[in-house]
Amino acid sequence: MSGAEKHELRKVFGTKVRRIRKERGLSQEALADVAGLHRTFVGFVERAETNVSIDNIGRIADALGVSAASLLTSE
Amino acid sequence: MSGAEKHELRKVFGTKVRRIRKERGLSQEALADVAGLHRTFVGFVERAETNVSIDNIGRIADALGVSAASLLTSE
Repeated sequence: MSGAEKHELRKVFGTKVRRIRKERGLSQEALADVAGLHRTFVGFVERAETNVSIDNIGRIADALGVSAASLLTSE
Repeated sequence: MSGAEKHELRKVFGTKVRRIRKERGLSQEALADVAGLHRTFVGFVERAETNVSIDNIGRIADALGVSAASLLTSE
């Protein structure tokens, strides 16, 4: 992974989570509650500031009602 | 995420990584070298024994020459 690509996947994931969360009309706190995560964690994820784990990717995808794979593409 | 679904995404990822690694004719050690990971780590990932991070999902996808999203689907 080159320097330019560093954290690129985090950014794709965070941007997609934020987009779908807003489409669902959910606050960060509401998403955190449904996903069983700390309320500040969703903000960190959306800003690509944390190296989120695959288990938490799964929890967030389930809470948003989408596939995990769909959260790793910008489409 | 229900109990039955716990670690399900890890298993999807690990199984897919193993399949594509073998298609590429790579050993776990060779994949680890290309991805910049410890040689034992790939085994843990493939057996779903570690809560792999999004940064390492990206490294493994880059090393295999596939999209990260494709590694989170069993297709």
